Amino acid sequence: MPSISKKGFSMPESPIRKLVPYAEKAKKEGVKVIHLNIGQPDIKTPKIALDAVKNNTISVLSYSRTEGSEAYREKLARYYANHDIEVTAQDILVTTGGSEALSFTMGSIADSDDEIIIPEPFYANYNGFATAMGVTVVPVVSQIDNNFALPPIEAFEKLITPRTKAILICNPGNPTGYLYTREEIKKIAAIAKKHDLFLISDEVYREFTYDGKEHYSILQEPGMDEHAIIVDSVSKRYSMCGARIGCMVSKNKDVMKTALKFAQARLSPPTYAQIASEAALETPLSYFEDVKKEYVSRRNLLIGELEKIEGIKIGHPQGAFYCIAELPIKDTDVFAQWLLEEFRVDGETVMVAPAAGFYASEGLGKNQIRIAYVLDKDRLKRAVFILKEALKSYKDQ
Amino acid sequence: MPSISKKGFSMPESPIRKLVPYAEKAKKEGVKVIHLNIGQPDIKTPKIALDAVKNNTISVLSYSRTEGSEAYREKLARYYANHDIEVTAQDILVTTGGSEALSFTMGSIADSDDEIIIPEPFYANYNGFATAMGVTVVPVVSQIDNNFALPPIEAFEKLITPRTKAILICNPGNPTGYLYTREEIKKIAAIAKKHDLFLISDEVYREFTYDGKEHYSILQEPGMDEHAIIVDSVSKRYSMCGARIGCMVSKNKDVMKTALKFAQARLSPPTYAQIASEAALETPLSYFEDVKKEYVSRRNLLIGELEKIEGIKIGHPQGAFYCIAELPIKDTDVFAQWLLEEFRVDGETVMVAPAAGFYASEGLGKNQIRIAYVLDKDRLKRAVFILKEALKSYKDQ
Repeated sequence: MPSISKKGFSMPESPIRKLVPYAEKAKKEGVKVIHLNIGQPDIKTPKIALDAVKNNTISVLSYSRTEGSEAYREKLARYYANHDIEVTAQDILVTTGGSEALSFTMGSIADSDDEIIIPEPFYANYNGFATAMGVTVVPVVSQIDNNFALPPIEAFEKLITPRTKAILICNPGNPTGYLYTREEIKKIAAIAKKHDLFLISDEVYREFTYDGKEHYSILQEPGMDEHAIIVDSVSKRYSMCGARIGCMVSKNKDVMKTALKFAQARLSPPTYAQIASEAALETPLSYFEDVKKEYVSRRNLLIGELEKIEGIKIGHPQGAFYCIAELPIKDTDVFAQWLLEEFRVDGETVMVAPAAGFYASEGLGKNQIRIAYVLDKDRLKRAVFILKEALKSYKDQ
Repeated sequence: MPSISKKGFSMPESPIRKLVPYAEKAKKEGVKVIHLNIGQPDIKTPKIALDAVKNNTISVLSYSRTEGSEAYREKLARYYANHDIEVTAQDILVTTGGSEALSFTMGSIADSDDEIIIPEPFYANYNGFATAMGVTVVPVVSQIDNNFALPPIEAFEKLITPRTKAILICNPGNPTGYLYTREEIKKIAAIAKKHDLFLISDEVYREFTYDGKEHYSILQEPGMDEHAIIVDSVSKRYSMCGARIGCMVSKNKDVMKTALKFAQARLSPPTYAQIASEAALETPLSYFEDVKKEYVSRRNLLIGELEKIEGIKIGHPQGAFYCIAELPIKDTDVFAQWLLEEFRVDGETVMVAPAAGFYASEGLGKNQIRIAYVLDKDRLKRAVFILKEALKSYKDQ
């Protein structure tokens, strides 16, 4: 019997996946499971995007352009200009989700065993794309005690080797909700320039910044044209996760030319989803104002309720819709499974994402969970109540 | 300035891509370019698939299941059963196009520098996926003189090394149109079993078989459960290239479990396209009968007209909608560019795909072109006439 690859063997499993059977079993038994674990917003997709697809006039569903349709890329360039990011359509490659933008980026800049430094905790799938492309992730720890702010520059510099090709940040962050300040972006950009590295910034949550704080993109920082690569997606921005449309943005022509070759192999991004995504750019500003208002009030409620729990420590998010909480227990993998298998309050329980999967350093994050505040405030409040009761009953091994 | 990866540098460009600027220039000058170069069918997408998308009732365009929706996979299993391929939904992973099925397959079974043997000429993007995944393509030559039939078993066995992980075939073939016989599939399956290799079969043209010949899948061959991996796609079957839906089919549980990890990293296949693809399975048989009738009459016309050209040699296709023609010239790259830049018949010219890009062996296929018969018979006849006139005028260097 032929065997699978070593690479396939070491591909990480989604940190939530192993809990799914327990959640399904609980649901079958009639238990209501409140999901704090998922990044799928409950917010409605803008009608203008949904309608564009319903009203399409396609008779032959043919390939689109490999780099995305000209019209969509032109409009995207205008979208970026509105966010003080000066790029042209030629600097944009439309991809099948932010996922593909990450794969193309890694493939274009890094060879087997090259290294990419990433502040941890980080979006778990960075590990998957890195493994698939044979790239090594080198984590640099950020701390819950200062809200997962940028680690000190010295911590990065200690990790830079001749194999280091890039630093990858997520801003605002999943799973931390941390929004890098302009000063932090300037610092990290300076390291990239000093050590001749790429700086990749996953900015899919760009709009979701709170408390009057503004997002500062790596492409707003002067002198970064050859270094900066933005990874972007419509998934969270317009609550269109199922579209699978993202893009890669860079003014480095070699990078874009190379990424295009990766894109050519897979022919084109999905056509229907591009129709939706192009239309979504016409979403009225009021949509984002409403969505932001909703997320802020959910966050405030979540943080307020979590702070009432004894022994808990919280990273205070200023963006995205995630929050890391440190619990007074040893292993949140065990705890999360126990919640699904054994703990109920009036027939309800919660599903949380154990945070160890968001760390590359072995042993870190084992007492942390990620909470996504993508459900309405009543459910959120109830979920935190159940969590609080659970922590009272839980017998830590 | 940071540099791109060696891998990115060696990613192949699409063999047609470099001709595109010449085609665009000709069009700008008012020249009509007849495209014999593309694999985008002109056939209408089944209405049932288009309507399913137009009538969708989505309000939150959320992620679908990583492995594809349960309903779609169940129906796909029935589709395969109708083609005498006995699989369950669990043996199917829905992918973003056949492209992704190829990437996941290569990643799941081969490590950096592992080898996959492929009869050439082959679909050029196999090279791209192999390069992206760090896998080495080892070509085995098939000959136009016997229609690109399976090379002799000894030719394969000579190439097998400890690094060989798989043999990859395309059946019926792009760019050859060759349909492997049951006996050939049995032979190649026997090598896979003898040498403990995977046998990957790209069967995206399964329905397009002519002259009463029947497609025989590697999963119809007994004893292949641990070896066989089918790569499939809705793109050509339902003229839905822009959907970007395909799948990977295997009864090898380790392979499927591993591919699922690659799939988890990219979250899910596109939702709208899955709606179209699920509905497309209800396409009436008469659709395929009509489409096949159309392709057969195009092929007969094409072959008949090509045979009138002096010095030309043709691979006689029994499937798909491609044909390789060997021209009495030295370099079809130069010839194809000359057609676009200089040759006109009453303001018209043709664009062909030079075949060298479909070979991995340096120097092979330089006097061949691939013709796709995806345009109506009048245009096809006119195109071959222009080609004939062009060959008369062309001064070979």
